[in-house]
Amino acid sequence: MDNFTFYSPTCFVFGRDTESQAGALVRRFGGSRVLIHYGGGSAVRSGLIGRVEASLKAEGLPCFLLGGVRPNPRSGLVYEGIELCKKENIDFILAVGGGSAIDSAKAIAAGTVYDGDFWDFYSGKRIENALPVGTVLTIAAAGSEGSPDSVITREDGMFKRGASGDAIRPKFSILNPALTQTLPPYQTAAGITDIMAHLYERYLTNTREVEVTDRLIEALLLTMIHEGPRVIEDPDNYDARANIMWAGMMAHNNSCGVGRSQDWNSHNIEHELSALYDCAHGAGLAVTLPAVFTYVMNHDIMRFAKVAVRVWGCQMDFDHPEVTAREGIEKLRRFFISIGMPRNFEELGAREEDIPVLVKALCRGDGRPGSISGFVTLDEADCEKIYRLML
Amino acid sequence: MDNFTFYSPTCFVFGRDTESQAGALVRRFGGSRVLIHYGGGSAVRSGLIGRVEASLKAEGLPCFLLGGVRPNPRSGLVYEGIELCKKENIDFILAVGGGSAIDSAKAIAAGTVYDGDFWDFYSGKRIENALPVGTVLTIAAAGSEGSPDSVITREDGMFKRGASGDAIRPKFSILNPALTQTLPPYQTAAGITDIMAHLYERYLTNTREVEVTDRLIEALLLTMIHEGPRVIEDPDNYDARANIMWAGMMAHNNSCGVGRSQDWNSHNIEHELSALYDCAHGAGLAVTLPAVFTYVMNHDIMRFAKVAVRVWGCQMDFDHPEVTAREGIEKLRRFFISIGMPRNFEELGAREEDIPVLVKALCRGDGRPGSISGFVTLDEADCEKIYRLML
Repeated sequence: MDNFTFYSPTCFVFGRDTESQAGALVRRFGGSRVLIHYGGGSAVRSGLIGRVEASLKAEGLPCFLLGGVRPNPRSGLVYEGIELCKKENIDFILAVGGGSAIDSAKAIAAGTVYDGDFWDFYSGKRIENALPVGTVLTIAAAGSEGSPDSVITREDGMFKRGASGDAIRPKFSILNPALTQTLPPYQTAAGITDIMAHLYERYLTNTREVEVTDRLIEALLLTMIHEGPRVIEDPDNYDARANIMWAGMMAHNNSCGVGRSQDWNSHNIEHELSALYDCAHGAGLAVTLPAVFTYVMNHDIMRFAKVAVRVWGCQMDFDHPEVTAREGIEKLRRFFISIGMPRNFEELGAREEDIPVLVKALCRGDGRPGSISGFVTLDEADCEKIYRLML
Repeated sequence: MDNFTFYSPTCFVFGRDTESQAGALVRRFGGSRVLIHYGGGSAVRSGLIGRVEASLKAEGLPCFLLGGVRPNPRSGLVYEGIELCKKENIDFILAVGGGSAIDSAKAIAAGTVYDGDFWDFYSGKRIENALPVGTVLTIAAAGSEGSPDSVITREDGMFKRGASGDAIRPKFSILNPALTQTLPPYQTAAGITDIMAHLYERYLTNTREVEVTDRLIEALLLTMIHEGPRVIEDPDNYDARANIMWAGMMAHNNSCGVGRSQDWNSHNIEHELSALYDCAHGAGLAVTLPAVFTYVMNHDIMRFAKVAVRVWGCQMDFDHPEVTAREGIEKLRRFFISIGMPRNFEELGAREEDIPVLVKALCRGDGRPGSISGFVTLDEADCEKIYRLML
């Protein structure tokens, strides 16, 4: 196991009606003038934004609203939020929504206290300072509610890039599984896929002797395999929603990924898809993961056999472990299809003729060196082959 | 799943040589005058205390030493530590050792800023304020490095009782698995047992639909079953030590126990044994757990069958699930014996004739109502039968 530091000082308030604690939590974590940052009209129409606003007002906290965050959140709104925060002397940002609203809020939080262009953080500069951020989560997926990460799409060039830093870990996150019950099934399934991708990205490691984190990741994958279909079958199943919501946080706050190298090639490969086609990140991952795994499987057959046996219940073929490894990948692929995710480029709305554009943006865009690295290093030729596996 | 709050703002610094960061961490978390609190001479002889002191001095932090914490830490030394902290205006307590040193440090931290008798907290009063505490862990066992809990034995009456409060969660914990390599095998095995007990106490729940935490607990039990025998076989196995050390923290910081009722009857039943005989807490638990589980099994056969199948690899007997449940308990019992733990009262150094004393202290001591409650409520007659199962 590698040396590591794990520091996750987010206060998670979990369960029914917990959004009513938003005001008290903002006050507890030092906020006095609050930006409520959210996405589309559904959070307004459902009354959630009104309830959160009421909770803040009950604490005497002035609040300012900035909606309009879209999936694959854009840099334009981040610049707008930074302006607003500076103008109104805002000192706390409360994201109400899913990963997009939270990631956009984190970008605004970092950008407001930074003299330069916030995009510097998405080009490799570590975030050292930010306004405090809190969240009211409405979709179990991105894990941004417990992570130090944010992903934003730059409109100039449509690059989708990530930034990181302990300063943008939320001070608190309110997780009410009931808020996710109104999600359309496609969004729920995309969230399930994203959570499972976060687990696989950590599972694919080159570090030896990491049984504890292997087992924890497997535990969360098993949970998703059990609870995912239940919630697709019955969207009102609060308990299934609750299990998925906690799994989604644990999948990405890194308690299960410490002390080991991780992959993240699949995320990078997918990011170009959602940047170009504006598809749901989870849907893109459902097409990407099986392709990437098929391509890199030979790098460590036993690791893919292990997840096949322990998570997917495959029988180990001791004479031909590659058969077991492949069976596990196939079970993953079929699982995604079974919950309603797309299976290929066509179903995703992607086009074969764009592959050169995708490969170039992935491997050379925004200063990249012609390859991406993780579990294995993939150059342009590899990435082209992987995109072709998705056809 | 029940509503819950999970807040674990401890900074874990994990890996080889990490104790050299003690000074920088104390400074980061606001300490300026430090009490180093530790146990016996081994931490001094090994040079660990010297290295920690050097790290603090390099940061210009005055430090005061208070050693002599013993297993099953006593109230007497806590009073002494509180006096010392008040006299020397100490503002940070750094525990160097295992659960005993950490629990004693937490008691001193709470007692120093409290006007009354610190024992109030161990009689039910919640700890709201305390000096900040940091830890350098030398044994993977108690999980106190990541928990808001402390257990102290009151010499007047030999009651062993717990206290709790977010204020005593360590600000940071330094976990260097190499520091545990010099432990005697018996202490290592007692630590493994304690970790597994923390997991079982959470597993025994009356809350329905908690698959995510069930799976996480099972993952950590599976890790212990794999790594425990490896480290007993080869005490210098750093990687096995590392896996156990992270599992030990995760087993008790409650990320795997949220949203569900928990048991803790076994801990209470054992506490009377280690209070009276001063045996290792883990050794007492090795004798206690199989007895308690055998006694309460019928309360929820399927839960015991589940852990038997998923963790111990038993075949499910669908016609007679109680057979599977019992097989899982038997495998647990044999596992403890295999790593060198005692199997009964005699091997633990306990005496049949003391059972009435144990039962009285357990059920009536320090204001208890004649019973203890958890997974099931156990009255004096139940507890007597359980102690007799350990003969």
